[in-house]
Amino acid sequence: MKALVLFSGGLDSTTCLALAVKEHGRENVMALSVYYGQKHDKEIAAARAVARHYGVKWQTLDLAAIFAGSDCTLLKGSEEDIPRESYADQLAKTDGKPVSTYVPFRNGLFLASAASIALSNGCGLIYYGAHSDDAAGNAYPDCSDKFNNAMNEAIYTGSGEQLSIKAPFVGLTKADVVKLGHGLGVPFELTWSCYEGGDAPCGVCGTCRDRAAAFEKNGLKDPLVG
Amino acid sequence: MKALVLFSGGLDSTTCLALAVKEHGRENVMALSVYYGQKHDKEIAAARAVARHYGVKWQTLDLAAIFAGSDCTLLKGSEEDIPRESYADQLAKTDGKPVSTYVPFRNGLFLASAASIALSNGCGLIYYGAHSDDAAGNAYPDCSDKFNNAMNEAIYTGSGEQLSIKAPFVGLTKADVVKLGHGLGVPFELTWSCYEGGDAPCGVCGTCRDRAAAFEKNGLKDPLVG
Repeated sequence: MKALVLFSGGLDSTTCLALAVKEHGRENVMALSVYYGQKHDKEIAAARAVARHYGVKWQTLDLAAIFAGSDCTLLKGSEEDIPRESYADQLAKTDGKPVSTYVPFRNGLFLASAASIALSNGCGLIYYGAHSDDAAGNAYPDCSDKFNNAMNEAIYTGSGEQLSIKAPFVGLTKADVVKLGHGLGVPFELTWSCYEGGDAPCGVCGTCRDRAAAFEKNGLKDPLVG
Repeated sequence: MKALVLFSGGLDSTTCLALAVKEHGRENVMALSVYYGQKHDKEIAAARAVARHYGVKWQTLDLAAIFAGSDCTLLKGSEEDIPRESYADQLAKTDGKPVSTYVPFRNGLFLASAASIALSNGCGLIYYGAHSDDAAGNAYPDCSDKFNNAMNEAIYTGSGEQLSIKAPFVGLTKADVVKLGHGLGVPFELTWSCYEGGDAPCGVCGTCRDRAAAFEKNGLKDPLVG
């Protein structure tokens, strides 16, 4: 069985790639990284390095044009700063709406693109590193269980039952993923999670805070943090 | 309410555009046409002409790279001919699999792209011209009711309940859509349905057969057929 890994170069999807390689062998795994117009290209650079580490076929896809009208603070088109608060603090100000780093229906678009590419390349599985902390309350509605289940169903049905999503971390926390990745020997030093594009992680954006907490819960040191 | 119409330049999506313009006014409607690597560009040319006819904002999106590995017979990458049989005859040979003109998860990808673009442009609705004949048996699994329902749910949930799909023809046949379009004054002479890129429709591909039957059931003449 050939598998495609939806792969950002972050901690979760790198652990997911490690698992896919373990389960299917690197010759049967392809990794897909999507550029969507981020302010920096650290994620794509990290993805390249990790894909090289595992020796898998790596494909990039540029979907930045799709978000040309968006005011999401992660994107080049936005002049607003990326928030430096926890998701809980951000959500307290959004009146139930997604946070300013929500990229419109990004995960739906990524999964749909992954489905088309997987089917075009004879893959029967999409590995997807979603975990139970991803939705961050309802900061990211395209990370909720309800969304994941609907998208699973759409892809399985819409492919004529040729393709399924495998989301092995869906019942795990980010701390659990770090633990699993640690056990699999994941090269965390090659990954990139921070929303900013600095030389080192900023330490204060939502994703830096979550990553730090996940390492700390395991009593592990993040190799990216000096 | 602003609306985005997923718009191929064919008969169904043109009727859908006509309805969206009637319901929201042309200044609140944008039409999105996706190029996915077809062997010809007749559809995009038709879409341009129809969008101009209605005076709506028209956007194109090139997703051909996504299908680079596909052997779908509609695509430039395929040297196989497009079948000249009815869908029923094609399905009799595929052993329950999608037909050779199935573009891998195309409608899922189109709807996901439409969702991201709609949200990026402040639209609360995606108009989608799916009808009850679209699945053609199970020739196109990404046209089934089950798929449509799952994708609806994914988009509504994954957008934080900011965006819905409106599929006004889902309980109608293609003949019903022709009747409705006729009543709305749709310029059928500007639309293009045929899978081939000739000067006139080939008359023998699956979609030409379906279009001819839909006009005939209404006692109408297709202006494209001499």
